[in-house]
Amino acid sequence: MKKWYVGVDLGGTNVRSGLVDEEGNIESRDKRKSLPRVSAEAPVKQIVDSITKVVHEGGVPFSDIRGIGIGSPGPLSAKEGKILKAGNLPHWDNFPLAAVIKEKVGVNTYIQNDANLFAYGEWWKGAGQGMDDFYAITLGTGIGGGAVCGGKLLTGFNDNASEIGHTSIDYNGPQCWCGQRGCLELYSSATGLVRMTNEALVNDHIKSSLEMYRGKPEELNSKIIFEAAQNGDEFARAMFDKAGYLLGLGIVNALNFLNFERIAIGGGLAQSGDLIFEPARRALSERGFSSYNYLVSIVPAAIPDEAGILGAVKMVIDMEVGS
Amino acid sequence: MKKWYVGVDLGGTNVRSGLVDEEGNIESRDKRKSLPRVSAEAPVKQIVDSITKVVHEGGVPFSDIRGIGIGSPGPLSAKEGKILKAGNLPHWDNFPLAAVIKEKVGVNTYIQNDANLFAYGEWWKGAGQGMDDFYAITLGTGIGGGAVCGGKLLTGFNDNASEIGHTSIDYNGPQCWCGQRGCLELYSSATGLVRMTNEALVNDHIKSSLEMYRGKPEELNSKIIFEAAQNGDEFARAMFDKAGYLLGLGIVNALNFLNFERIAIGGGLAQSGDLIFEPARRALSERGFSSYNYLVSIVPAAIPDEAGILGAVKMVIDMEVGS
Repeated sequence: MKKWYVGVDLGGTNVRSGLVDEEGNIESRDKRKSLPRVSAEAPVKQIVDSITKVVHEGGVPFSDIRGIGIGSPGPLSAKEGKILKAGNLPHWDNFPLAAVIKEKVGVNTYIQNDANLFAYGEWWKGAGQGMDDFYAITLGTGIGGGAVCGGKLLTGFNDNASEIGHTSIDYNGPQCWCGQRGCLELYSSATGLVRMTNEALVNDHIKSSLEMYRGKPEELNSKIIFEAAQNGDEFARAMFDKAGYLLGLGIVNALNFLNFERIAIGGGLAQSGDLIFEPARRALSERGFSSYNYLVSIVPAAIPDEAGILGAVKMVIDMEVGS
Repeated sequence: MKKWYVGVDLGGTNVRSGLVDEEGNIESRDKRKSLPRVSAEAPVKQIVDSITKVVHEGGVPFSDIRGIGIGSPGPLSAKEGKILKAGNLPHWDNFPLAAVIKEKVGVNTYIQNDANLFAYGEWWKGAGQGMDDFYAITLGTGIGGGAVCGGKLLTGFNDNASEIGHTSIDYNGPQCWCGQRGCLELYSSATGLVRMTNEALVNDHIKSSLEMYRGKPEELNSKIIFEAAQNGDEFARAMFDKAGYLLGLGIVNALNFLNFERIAIGGGLAQSGDLIFEPARRALSERGFSSYNYLVSIVPAAIPDEAGILGAVKMVIDMEVGS
């Protein structure tokens, strides 16, 4: 008889759920646009609805579900099952999400940082399979990270590990909200790419199809820069090159701390493909330890739509076996 | 009946050994100046002599020694028991140290990076006791690091983890031999402190007791800067402040990757005390995540002379129990 679990991935854009067996097969799945956060209850109801849908579609009674795992933006306390603060969920400050969901559906529920579970899912069933030391990045509006070290998910003493987006590559760089200056997120996220491009456009010697956004920083976005780069705009390509190269330098720092064999990159900006991956790989090649940087690969996430769900389930399985 | 192990710490300056029981009590110990490296054999003989001395002094027959652990500067392969390259040991390139020692003394021998074992010893019996997530730094001529994550020594896929000295805090900074620019070691090691001081002395507006070293960079060393700072020289104090503050920024990067509860600092430059610790703590306070940086402590190593030996022994014990 199969053992059943539910994994949930709470993104800013979508809520995704899956009914999953102990081998990591997804029996049924659900994806819905994250609702406007008008109350503490609305997103809870949406999560419960999504869980209920995948359990019913899978034809499994709730009493057979051994556990629910949820990946959420942090900061959070996995031990206490609480969301401590959620930027896009103003009603969820210090919110006991795990206990609330358990009360609604009657199944033990565990939470963890979403980027950590993304990495754990990629490690279990995606780009990191079979590797003891692996890293994954979610490259979107911000930059998240997650690490598997010696075959274990790295969480740290209070679930704040792997915040690669908030590691500095320039201590004199621009101020970040987190307290540091020159955080990787200020350069290599979608927001960072737009920031750097607007900054460069101030120089009116720049010739580019993006000139029309000079003086209108709020109108520019990463999609516009991507399309310009796709159309051969040299300035737009140079901006991607800088974002990707600096991402690679952040990766070298991660590597010199964690010594992983592979790093996978998912998230919206990763879909820019070689515009990001080529310069990131160049940075690794130029600035990583030459004694072993050629053994390390930077690859696209293999299962970006499922990694969060599967990582959440694997976390629950680990807890059962006391791993 | 006690279980016996030998731990060896191969430093650039000293070779230290200890006969240690399974509880981490050191029964007998040896410390001798590292010999000039005139051949591959000389340092091997020295290690064997040191091991033999502590075993005999402890009154334990060699047949009762369950294993020998050795911490060595890297890069090395713990799995293969080989030193891959040792800057100060030119005869040890790709040298099978573990097998050579085992052949000489008849006891299973394991090797690991010295800074990793320093951290592991501090975690087992020193400043990191009882914490699942802990970091330690050796602050000397260079900067080494070691991490315990979730109660396990972090080694990475090929034993190159925790190289905090070669994480960059300024991607436009000075070139490091490792491939990166702006590595922490270029600012906050003894060598880095001297480099920054010489660089600042070029500016002849500087008034300081160190002016006599202007134009003579090779005559300046960290001890001289320390003594000037101790005597109240403001310029020398400012140089320590910069080295310590930037060390703190490197620590914030480490923290945002690894989320440890405490970090201990050993090594020669750590003996400068508050000249280094105060600015490092200030950096953590100013630039760490304010949601939890106040929970993290920066402390001096508790057992700097024994940590390397004890970490080496703990590694061997782990291997026995298959941990």
